[in-house]
Amino acid sequence: MKILREIAEFIHRKDRFLITSHAGPDGDSLGTALALAEALDQLGKTVDVVNADPVPRMYESLPGIDRVIVSSEVKASYDALIVLECCNLERTGVEGLERFAAVNIDHHLKNDEFGELNWIDPKAAAVGEMIFLLFGELGVRITPEMASNLYVALLTDTGSFHFSNTTAETFRVAGELVSAGADPAQIAQTVLMNQPESRLRLLCRVLSSLEFDSSGRVAWLSLTQEMLEKTGSSADDSEGMVNYALSVEGVRVCAFFKQKRAQFYRVSLRSRGDEDVSEVAQHYGGGGHRNAAGMSLEGPFEEVRDRVLNRLTSLVS
Amino acid sequence: MKILREIAEFIHRKDRFLITSHAGPDGDSLGTALALAEALDQLGKTVDVVNADPVPRMYESLPGIDRVIVSSEVKASYDALIVLECCNLERTGVEGLERFAAVNIDHHLKNDEFGELNWIDPKAAAVGEMIFLLFGELGVRITPEMASNLYVALLTDTGSFHFSNTTAETFRVAGELVSAGADPAQIAQTVLMNQPESRLRLLCRVLSSLEFDSSGRVAWLSLTQEMLEKTGSSADDSEGMVNYALSVEGVRVCAFFKQKRAQFYRVSLRSRGDEDVSEVAQHYGGGGHRNAAGMSLEGPFEEVRDRVLNRLTSLVS
Repeated sequence: MKILREIAEFIHRKDRFLITSHAGPDGDSLGTALALAEALDQLGKTVDVVNADPVPRMYESLPGIDRVIVSSEVKASYDALIVLECCNLERTGVEGLERFAAVNIDHHLKNDEFGELNWIDPKAAAVGEMIFLLFGELGVRITPEMASNLYVALLTDTGSFHFSNTTAETFRVAGELVSAGADPAQIAQTVLMNQPESRLRLLCRVLSSLEFDSSGRVAWLSLTQEMLEKTGSSADDSEGMVNYALSVEGVRVCAFFKQKRAQFYRVSLRSRGDEDVSEVAQHYGGGGHRNAAGMSLEGPFEEVRDRVLNRLTSLVS
Repeated sequence: MKILREIAEFIHRKDRFLITSHAGPDGDSLGTALALAEALDQLGKTVDVVNADPVPRMYESLPGIDRVIVSSEVKASYDALIVLECCNLERTGVEGLERFAAVNIDHHLKNDEFGELNWIDPKAAAVGEMIFLLFGELGVRITPEMASNLYVALLTDTGSFHFSNTTAETFRVAGELVSAGADPAQIAQTVLMNQPESRLRLLCRVLSSLEFDSSGRVAWLSLTQEMLEKTGSSADDSEGMVNYALSVEGVRVCAFFKQKRAQFYRVSLRSRGDEDVSEVAQHYGGGGHRNAAGMSLEGPFEEVRDRVLNRLTSLVS
């Protein structure tokens, strides 16, 4: 692939690199940034990894995680910038990046192509899957630490290989990473099976809120500030819980109403098949994809809920 | 591999086959049996698939599932028997099998090698992974339906690629199955994301029972007959819930006490690392592996619980 060769040549030409990714880092952006940093180390480059937001607890065990600098401004000087999983530079949440020659690597469809080199592959399950190919082009040796970090990227961005971005190539790369020293069970245990007790207490309360419309095709869950307080949880702890509503047989679309403050709700929408929840999200000024979207709404809970459920009900009828 | 060649030759020589697997069928035994049956169809053989127990609800969507005959006795005549995932013939729960020439295919360490041909590979994540190799030897074409069934075997027997049986070979085979037409997202949705509402209601109650010892290294959950009645759940619905206790940070070992009737409990044990819960299970006349074991105990709940917790506590101290 031409772009791969160009990026490899670009990397070989430069010395001092800054790697960054989107604010609110996840397994794909962190794992890939760390693996790439180690690859550049191998090539004798100087590398900093910067993110605007702190590392979420579940990723604290990633090899090399201590090298992530949490900062929303870059003052040092670099020869080049590598930006992972960002549609534009603003998405990084980091200021002072415009002055560097940038390589832009992303797997989302919409991307502003802001880089000197832009490698956008919407078919890739994760940027980790793309970076694996770049390592081949760069001729670096994939250490067990690099393999583990890229495996975290694949595992988390595919929802344990459950999401529709999972392809034959994803599995091929996962297999190569295991051959290179990634331990799937140990990583699943450390990254996924390592939740605070408060999260399970919260899950229990959120599940208690489960309701359905009369058709059984629409389900919803809700989370209140009181639930967070009573369980000692943070809003982040509710990540992924929306999927429990979708997992019930017969349910086609679901909503998760997360109270952010009095009369203000963040709403996550999910659907199973052809039902396009992004339409509903867009109607309320939000966005997303066909099967996963979200928006914010103001008002009393019952009012917010009914507005959303009316739209969801007409989606499945 | 010699045994693969021998099994392929055995299959080519015979005409009428009976495929069976262990009682209480799971994704690996059912998916593999159905894929193998379709392979034998392709070769022009006559094939019956028999299981002693009904198909669990989550596997009702497997392609070809209607061909599974639920019976605990075989009276018809066959040239050969293929037994999947059974340490001995009793494990099938089906009577009348002794008179057939048997091929015995299993991935568990302990196996009585009761067959005319025995192919035991404890390194395989699932018998589905083994059968994929046999298809290569047999020269059959892997249809999308066969690929889907084998993918179900891999997905469920590895716990979505989280368990320690997941290897580079598992991912290689998964990738080949996706190339052959298995749809990972659709299968995950249909098989895993398709639970009855009652199961979520039960999960909520079971999670409410979560407790820890003072070290935070031992956790336990319990399930009562009353919980099953109040939620309209069956005992099968509690499958997998023990893992919630193990998923809490700091927990090394956990127990799940499932009341079967008054003063009688089935206890599932899990551990994260080196702690060997099979020792505890064996002490009480049960069995299992290092990280997953179980036994039955009689007595009032508090007594049963304390007996088990004492043993678990000494395991982690």
